Amino acid sequence: MGPRVSAAALADRLTGLIGPRASVARGVLDQHGQSESHYRNLPPDIVVFPETTQEVAEIVKLCADVGMPIIPFGAGTSLEGNTAAVAGGVCFDFARMNKVLAVHASDMDVVVQPGITRKQLGAELRNTGLFFPIDPGADASIGGMTSTRASGTMAVRYGTMKDNVMALEVVLADGRVIRTAQRARKSAAGYDLTRMFVGAEGTLGVITEITLKVHPVPQAISAAVCSFDTLHDAVDTAISVIQAAIPVARVELLDDVMMRGINVYAKLGYREAPTLFFEFHGSETSVAEQAEAAQAIAADHGGHGFAWAKAPEDRSRLWHARDNTLYAGLGLRPGARAVITDVCVPISRLAECLTETRRDADEHGFTAPIVGHVGDGNFHMLILIDPALPDETEGAKALQARMVARAIAMDGTCTGEHGIGLGKIDYLTDELGGAVDVMRSIKRTLDPNGLMNPGKIFADGAVA
Amino acid sequence: MGPRVSAAALADRLTGLIGPRASVARGVLDQHGQSESHYRNLPPDIVVFPETTQEVAEIVKLCADVGMPIIPFGAGTSLEGNTAAVAGGVCFDFARMNKVLAVHASDMDVVVQPGITRKQLGAELRNTGLFFPIDPGADASIGGMTSTRASGTMAVRYGTMKDNVMALEVVLADGRVIRTAQRARKSAAGYDLTRMFVGAEGTLGVITEITLKVHPVPQAISAAVCSFDTLHDAVDTAISVIQAAIPVARVELLDDVMMRGINVYAKLGYREAPTLFFEFHGSETSVAEQAEAAQAIAADHGGHGFAWAKAPEDRSRLWHARDNTLYAGLGLRPGARAVITDVCVPISRLAECLTETRRDADEHGFTAPIVGHVGDGNFHMLILIDPALPDETEGAKALQARMVARAIAMDGTCTGEHGIGLGKIDYLTDELGGAVDVMRSIKRTLDPNGLMNPGKIFADGAVA
Repeated sequence: MGPRVSAAALADRLTGLIGPRASVARGVLDQHGQSESHYRNLPPDIVVFPETTQEVAEIVKLCADVGMPIIPFGAGTSLEGNTAAVAGGVCFDFARMNKVLAVHASDMDVVVQPGITRKQLGAELRNTGLFFPIDPGADASIGGMTSTRASGTMAVRYGTMKDNVMALEVVLADGRVIRTAQRARKSAAGYDLTRMFVGAEGTLGVITEITLKVHPVPQAISAAVCSFDTLHDAVDTAISVIQAAIPVARVELLDDVMMRGINVYAKLGYREAPTLFFEFHGSETSVAEQAEAAQAIAADHGGHGFAWAKAPEDRSRLWHARDNTLYAGLGLRPGARAVITDVCVPISRLAECLTETRRDADEHGFTAPIVGHVGDGNFHMLILIDPALPDETEGAKALQARMVARAIAMDGTCTGEHGIGLGKIDYLTDELGGAVDVMRSIKRTLDPNGLMNPGKIFADGAVA
Repeated sequence: MGPRVSAAALADRLTGLIGPRASVARGVLDQHGQSESHYRNLPPDIVVFPETTQEVAEIVKLCADVGMPIIPFGAGTSLEGNTAAVAGGVCFDFARMNKVLAVHASDMDVVVQPGITRKQLGAELRNTGLFFPIDPGADASIGGMTSTRASGTMAVRYGTMKDNVMALEVVLADGRVIRTAQRARKSAAGYDLTRMFVGAEGTLGVITEITLKVHPVPQAISAAVCSFDTLHDAVDTAISVIQAAIPVARVELLDDVMMRGINVYAKLGYREAPTLFFEFHGSETSVAEQAEAAQAIAADHGGHGFAWAKAPEDRSRLWHARDNTLYAGLGLRPGARAVITDVCVPISRLAECLTETRRDADEHGFTAPIVGHVGDGNFHMLILIDPALPDETEGAKALQARMVARAIAMDGTCTGEHGIGLGKIDYLTDELGGAVDVMRSIKRTLDPNGLMNPGKIFADGAVA
């Protein structure tokens, strides 16, 4: 069932409400339909740029009145088509709702609007002695990170968005505004609605305010890099570091293909072998002790050339390489696009999952670098394809399907941090079976007309 | 609308299914209707002792067929009447489902049945190098702790049940069995059903299996105790310790009244003043460094006689005092019962909330010791009453109401870790307003006939 008015008629009403902050300009629409991954452009009919929760609620009510889809949009950096307007509709761009509303330094929390990006938030927190540790690589918006349950390199120490979102303000599908929690550090008061909206990809409501935990800036930071002969040795090192209760802040694995990409991209001379990047946070003493203990463990597993970086500029150079894996990976095949996918498995199965996936990609002739948040058992593969060749796209999707099936068979998940979006709807059912029916019941209850970011998480026809 | 058959008729059918593991013996029923807090005995009609998930599902289906309430029961240690059979029904006692099903040492997780208690789990983990850190004081069952979103003394370092439950198997109200997640450390696959059932107090389904994070036993542990002239000084010390990024494992506050109780109970000679109990986990070096840093901060806030305990027997003696606050508190008024209540506020407001609550209790003539998980902003008050005097019960409830209102006004929660149960239903609405309607929608969707632990979280008539 489509909307009951034309997009043009709704656009007129929206212009009446917020003036030029409702746009139907072709360029604006196209910009909001694109993806950083391989999905085709699926633009909305209208883009709005609300400035207040009240405006969001009013626009949601207008959309609900006429049956028009509602798609929240942050920085557009998601990877599974999570903001694609599969059925048209109104895209809510939160670029103008990007303020820090409060910094509670004693409580170590901040209240922000959803459009602020993580780098903007980092800049706002400078000089407070606090920082926000979730780093998914891209300069994503906090609203988008909340909606995809993002995590990234520091999750092994600081948790994911699930662990760092304390409370939300949400506009529901009928325009009601709720707050999911107060600002206490913990609560046993009723159902955990906060966690219900974190990771819901905008399919249950529109997030308009987020209370986040922030953390004290560590007194000292040091970083290190170390290569290994096999993926197994690298993974076993990471597992041993964690089992030894070394509170590592980051432990990232790059495979030989990705290391080659980094050498090419950044004109570096790293050994092109499976490599771990470490970062340690703590007091001066603690950081030194952590790094020495990790070095000893790496040596036990045949690690080569454990290289240290304590000075900020040395650390930056080291991590700059890691932070640019997307571009470094793409550089391995100029002109290519990437099918970017992630899975997460129990770490005892990670080496096996990585090795089989590496072999599978190689056997099928794909250039497909791998990078992993190895402390969590989470890894990404960038499958480089020429989008003009349908066979390659199909082959990449088949390779991804085998990778996901392998992860699920190992008691893992079809996505550790990118979300379901458009791309992993079938895999969600493969993974969780009947639990998906429960998710669908909740979706129907909170969004009976199926207007909230339709086509994501669930197959299109499945909800309505 | 009551059940469509008599309890006796259902008991016959249950006996047919599981033999003598269905009981209607008066003593058994009464034992399952009682509470560790001040609630009157509200026994179920039947108690069953299932041994498998399949049995739970079959019994749930029988109950659903005839409209009989379903009440999951662990160790019976909850404090808000969370297992009271307000409308009769079938109590599911999980005493016979108390196994560890798997220990995945490399992955640092375990799979357990809901009836295992935390001390039993601790014993099972001995010799694995791993431990489960959630310690609510009582020897609660893991199923009960999951259902009330328990936390306790080590939450400041290791998180609450919300953070340590990785996946659940749940029997739904119609007997369907679902798994909420795989065993990966993190996932972005669909709605977070795990967190929806954690803290739902059995009102959405019956938990039959729990996958938990476990943690490496720290290499070294040390403990310390330090008294202060005022609650403010003690709280400010705790805040400074946390802001200094000292990864304290426990920081517990006992007020002067509670310290008096402990001296009487354990024949000790502590100063009867606000007192902090600390515990530090880490390497030998790190623990020493943490404790020294905390000592310096305590001294800055006028801390008296920072006393150390490194040897296990000294630590045990020190924490034994803290661990027996319930009995120590009750000992302050022989023959009394306790109205036990908890709230949690942002830590910047904690000193104010504590001081006002202390004054309020004193002014109204109550002996009411206070103990707090101060790193989280969470504290408990034991209001000692003579249950034979209705005025005292009413006065205690009014004191609790003022304490809760104070916490909510400070952006805190009406319960940090005990749950809503019977006792805090109205406060939940005071705290979260319209969000409670969303909780109620979810309840109606998953339990349309209102059979799952009725009368808890929501007022009786509100759901059906």
